[in-house]
Amino acid sequence: MKIAIAGLGTVGAAVFRLVTEKSALLGQRAGRQIEVSAVSARDRGRDRGISLENVRWFDDAADMAQNANADIIVELIGGSDGIALEVCEAAIASGKDVVTANKALLAHHGAALAVTADQAGRSIAYEAAVAGGIPVIKALREGLAANRVDSIYGILNGTCNFILTAMRDSGCDFETVLKEAQEKGYAEADPGFDVDGVDAAHKLSILTAVAFGCAPDFDAVSVEGIRHISDLDIAFADELGYRIKLLGIARRTGEGIEQSVHPCMVRTGSPMAHVDGVFNAVAIQGDDSGPVVLEGQGAGAGPTASAVVADIMDLAKGLRLPVFGIPANALSVSMPANTDRQTGRYYVRLMVVDRPGVFADVAAALRDENVSMEAILQRTRAPGEPVPVVMTTHEVAQSAVRKTVKRFAALDTVVEEPRIIGIEPLTF
Amino acid sequence: MKIAIAGLGTVGAAVFRLVTEKSALLGQRAGRQIEVSAVSARDRGRDRGISLENVRWFDDAADMAQNANADIIVELIGGSDGIALEVCEAAIASGKDVVTANKALLAHHGAALAVTADQAGRSIAYEAAVAGGIPVIKALREGLAANRVDSIYGILNGTCNFILTAMRDSGCDFETVLKEAQEKGYAEADPGFDVDGVDAAHKLSILTAVAFGCAPDFDAVSVEGIRHISDLDIAFADELGYRIKLLGIARRTGEGIEQSVHPCMVRTGSPMAHVDGVFNAVAIQGDDSGPVVLEGQGAGAGPTASAVVADIMDLAKGLRLPVFGIPANALSVSMPANTDRQTGRYYVRLMVVDRPGVFADVAAALRDENVSMEAILQRTRAPGEPVPVVMTTHEVAQSAVRKTVKRFAALDTVVEEPRIIGIEPLTF
Repeated sequence: MKIAIAGLGTVGAAVFRLVTEKSALLGQRAGRQIEVSAVSARDRGRDRGISLENVRWFDDAADMAQNANADIIVELIGGSDGIALEVCEAAIASGKDVVTANKALLAHHGAALAVTADQAGRSIAYEAAVAGGIPVIKALREGLAANRVDSIYGILNGTCNFILTAMRDSGCDFETVLKEAQEKGYAEADPGFDVDGVDAAHKLSILTAVAFGCAPDFDAVSVEGIRHISDLDIAFADELGYRIKLLGIARRTGEGIEQSVHPCMVRTGSPMAHVDGVFNAVAIQGDDSGPVVLEGQGAGAGPTASAVVADIMDLAKGLRLPVFGIPANALSVSMPANTDRQTGRYYVRLMVVDRPGVFADVAAALRDENVSMEAILQRTRAPGEPVPVVMTTHEVAQSAVRKTVKRFAALDTVVEEPRIIGIEPLTF
Repeated sequence: MKIAIAGLGTVGAAVFRLVTEKSALLGQRAGRQIEVSAVSARDRGRDRGISLENVRWFDDAADMAQNANADIIVELIGGSDGIALEVCEAAIASGKDVVTANKALLAHHGAALAVTADQAGRSIAYEAAVAGGIPVIKALREGLAANRVDSIYGILNGTCNFILTAMRDSGCDFETVLKEAQEKGYAEADPGFDVDGVDAAHKLSILTAVAFGCAPDFDAVSVEGIRHISDLDIAFADELGYRIKLLGIARRTGEGIEQSVHPCMVRTGSPMAHVDGVFNAVAIQGDDSGPVVLEGQGAGAGPTASAVVADIMDLAKGLRLPVFGIPANALSVSMPANTDRQTGRYYVRLMVVDRPGVFADVAAALRDENVSMEAILQRTRAPGEPVPVVMTTHEVAQSAVRKTVKRFAALDTVVEEPRIIGIEPLTF
């Protein structure tokens, strides 16, 4: 079994090393020898700690995808378009299978690529694209294949989870912790992809496709990141018995599959609350299996290489599955999340100037919009100074909460944009 | 794809129902229609809520395994020997694949069955044998196939975990909670198989085989159950920041693979501490993947049927793997656990008659055996009455602790058999 690797960054080099160093073990387990026959990367001369002597070098990855003597093209270039897409299309067109870690590519072009792969009788495997070393695609597409999935949710971005965990541990604010994460290499110089929820939404759209048999559709995901989460919110969450986590959630509703990525409060006792630092976790609710939770390292060279090589070994064993578990032409359409229709419980934080009459105004807005409070907290009193006032609501329409908060914002005693964070009633 | 089901108890009937009711979904995902062609059970007339009209009935399961018009025999009779073994051997001998949920069978005869299956070119699939609905065999044998596993551990018996959780929640003793578990159907009338750790040891020996590539060997597992865990120990564990869990643990050591099932203290913050009630969890430490934890329902008709049907679907897709991940003739030998050689930290509880000189005797025994204490707790004082005295040790040889405890037991102020519970330093 010959593989060609496109992209020799940290992950590409780790895959090369794993396949080379564990050759005997992999051969025994896969029933065939696996070897790297070709590679392509930007800089041939760079020292990656691996010897490229016995492999063919290609300057052009698409050229390699087309012409290398390989059964599988391993695409580790990244990016939703451009060269990565070209490489995958060229590989399939020339009768090769594809293994990729590229979530952006699949979130945006997965449906079209699945049609192409089906027509050519080739496979696209992508365990490494979601939740790194956790074999969650395999669990969904194979291990739980006998189930109708009712919902799936997870902590899908290690950078955000690291930041939220560190904010809680240190009491520091978002910017300070982001800087620390960047210094440690847990966050990019341009962190938007992670902290704005885009990366988690890419992964969620892939999980949704496999879990519910619908075409991945990034644009159908409602996305909210963690930039606006303050150290105050983290401290109040603690006090109320919650942790704030960035969750990706996909649910079967009467009208279709709803997908959203947003920071939310989860009860301290729930499994997700204990997933800290750069760890990822995914919870799947199957109708027969019941809840299944998988947890592990969502990123890093080792975990990602572990997932990439598992896909290669599956192909070596002859396992060929439709990309998203069912024939591409049978994939249904998910539905754009309509958050207005959603109901739930909410955490609301206002910064108010503490003077007489404030609570009367707040209470009037709540009454008029028919929103009922479960609890209200005010930790410090400082006459004339802005102080936080925190409320949690009973079950209520999200639209009603948004209207109420708009009224709060218009009060002249309210000095900042009020914050709303959903309280997720995770049952497992 | 035709299957024949041997055994129509709760699980057998659930498999029948799942395959029948989800026929379209399974067909789409497996790429082939799956249908039940034959069944065998003890009582033909019993009402199981399923219609057996269109399937052939066999009075003799081994006869069915040999002669049914089926590609797969699903063995759900149970038991380590006798008819279950006959059915599997007959199925393979007549060119059929086997899907089974039978852990006892595999723990005792797995190695021999794997050789037979390899020679005949047939598969034995057994996802349902370990941790019910959690796809842990698939995760190990496929999803983490690129890893050298360093250790694996888990909560593998739902009955024991239910009992330990309920003891903690209620403060009641083992016997009271066992009775409650029996009334709820979580424990058998004869509970020994579960509470003495045998069932967990069966499962551990299978996990060990897949994780480390050695032949399953039930006799190599050191086994200790939970009958001797008292409500006092549970309360002290809480006070010390631990939960008591029955863990199955397999570790790569310098001399081989060591396996043990025993109740132990795990830090309140560790993932295993939060696995409550009838839930199971398995943690796998791979060299590249890092830690991966899987949690879900370890028993019950739905979860078990989910796993059985996933195996059937794999075979329908043409996935054929060596039973324990590598050719049977390449399986190595595990090693019998030698607990004497182990070191660790230990919890020790004595019941002492509280009179002058007790502590001097205890201290002398500790000094003589060179065992150093981390903490000592005595909660109540009642002159003349037995009171619990609890110690936790620093890292020490298990043999030294056992010798010390023997000396404690010989003291005339010590009135019950002292209790030792290992403190597991779980790093994930």
